[in-house]
Amino acid sequence: MSGTAERKDQEKIVTAAVLVVGDEILSGRTKDKNIGYIAEYLTAIGIDLKEVRVVPDDEPEIVAALDALRNRYTYVFTTGGIGPTHDDITADAVAKAFGVALDYHPQAVEILRERLAQTGGVMNEARMRMTRVPAGGELVLNKISAAPGFRIGNVIVMAGIPSVMQAMLEWVTPQLKTGAKMLSESVQADLREGDIGTELGVIAKAHPEVMIGSYPFMDEKRGANAHVVMRARDPHKLAAVKAEVEGMLARVHAALAAE
Amino acid sequence: MSGTAERKDQEKIVTAAVLVVGDEILSGRTKDKNIGYIAEYLTAIGIDLKEVRVVPDDEPEIVAALDALRNRYTYVFTTGGIGPTHDDITADAVAKAFGVALDYHPQAVEILRERLAQTGGVMNEARMRMTRVPAGGELVLNKISAAPGFRIGNVIVMAGIPSVMQAMLEWVTPQLKTGAKMLSESVQADLREGDIGTELGVIAKAHPEVMIGSYPFMDEKRGANAHVVMRARDPHKLAAVKAEVEGMLARVHAALAAE
Repeated sequence: MSGTAERKDQEKIVTAAVLVVGDEILSGRTKDKNIGYIAEYLTAIGIDLKEVRVVPDDEPEIVAALDALRNRYTYVFTTGGIGPTHDDITADAVAKAFGVALDYHPQAVEILRERLAQTGGVMNEARMRMTRVPAGGELVLNKISAAPGFRIGNVIVMAGIPSVMQAMLEWVTPQLKTGAKMLSESVQADLREGDIGTELGVIAKAHPEVMIGSYPFMDEKRGANAHVVMRARDPHKLAAVKAEVEGMLARVHAALAAE
Repeated sequence: MSGTAERKDQEKIVTAAVLVVGDEILSGRTKDKNIGYIAEYLTAIGIDLKEVRVVPDDEPEIVAALDALRNRYTYVFTTGGIGPTHDDITADAVAKAFGVALDYHPQAVEILRERLAQTGGVMNEARMRMTRVPAGGELVLNKISAAPGFRIGNVIVMAGIPSVMQAMLEWVTPQLKTGAKMLSESVQADLREGDIGTELGVIAKAHPEVMIGSYPFMDEKRGANAHVVMRARDPHKLAAVKAEVEGMLARVHAALAAE
């Protein structure tokens, strides 16, 4: 790749939001396991997750959140609400947000019929719900469940069950635009956050192109400790800031030892 | 309590949103453990969690989310961004959202000085950051960390570390208005969701005052299975719908056995 093309690629930023649909998450009955997975997955393939929302199984709420997110980010990934029961209304809400009809998708019907022939279940009104896709949408298949997700425009609609969601995310990945990956480095401070906060702030201010975060944790041996995490798309800038942070940590260690 | 007062109490609905502030959640580096905990906790004390948002460590983003949520729900609980480092900007954002100054809070400073006297740390600019509270705010204390959260108006600002957040939530609870508790019942279907979806939809439609959800899971013995969860504030209505769901499940079991 030429230098110019490489720079251009590094500047390309692809963003995403996650919309979790589910009364069961808001009531605390079910603990979400998808947000963290999707966050890590998207970061790894070069998509920046910028926002997450969790909303109830309520059509106007889902439509409002979809519209806010799909107009702002490159992609919106939804999880939940695509099963066969009356409370599965994500497809209805997506169709409404896009202003299109919601119809049975022939390929989805075929996949479901084949699966039912294997498992001995009967096709019925409830199961047919799972084959509804907004007009213009394309199926997002997976190897685990016979019920597909779908993609329409920049919205990717996935299941709420983690194993099925993960399979759908993997399936749709080759279709996604990705940007330059966000790289990260982590340094364990072996100091308390309060001991390094001022100095770290000076480094952060001097390098706005590198995001620096400090994350406290309790260390069994030392007590309060912190990880300093640096993130940037440019590996050289990242390495330079890492060296600066390590130098700062060494100076603070020396100063505290001398007290 | 008189019958009228009791009815009035049951009609009182108190709502909340959770706002998670944190680049580390959006990058996937840290897996959130607070949303599920707060959801379950609020449900148990009679506050309905209606929405969750996760936003980055970016002041305009935090302010916009705060304003959207605090004008809509009884309470907004924030987690994260109140430590001593430059990336801890939740207090700044809350002060900006409320249009008030952000100052060192005398009691917070005193608590921190006492703790530092015990642990041998030094007071410095970074640690002083943790004592900043928007004008008019009141401290939300906790027994674990010397850094308090705070409450201003209907916004409760808490730490991101789960143990500290949980202690803060417990501390602030006596100050919160709570409504009639949402009660719930769960029945294991021992049937596939697709086998009961249509019938369950009929029951749900006939009883709009009871929220009925169906949650599929994989059962080691049976394969695909589902829990039907019913939620309502009125115990009599809840019991009636539970009986109806159980009757329906028995009928579907009998019909499938007869096939």
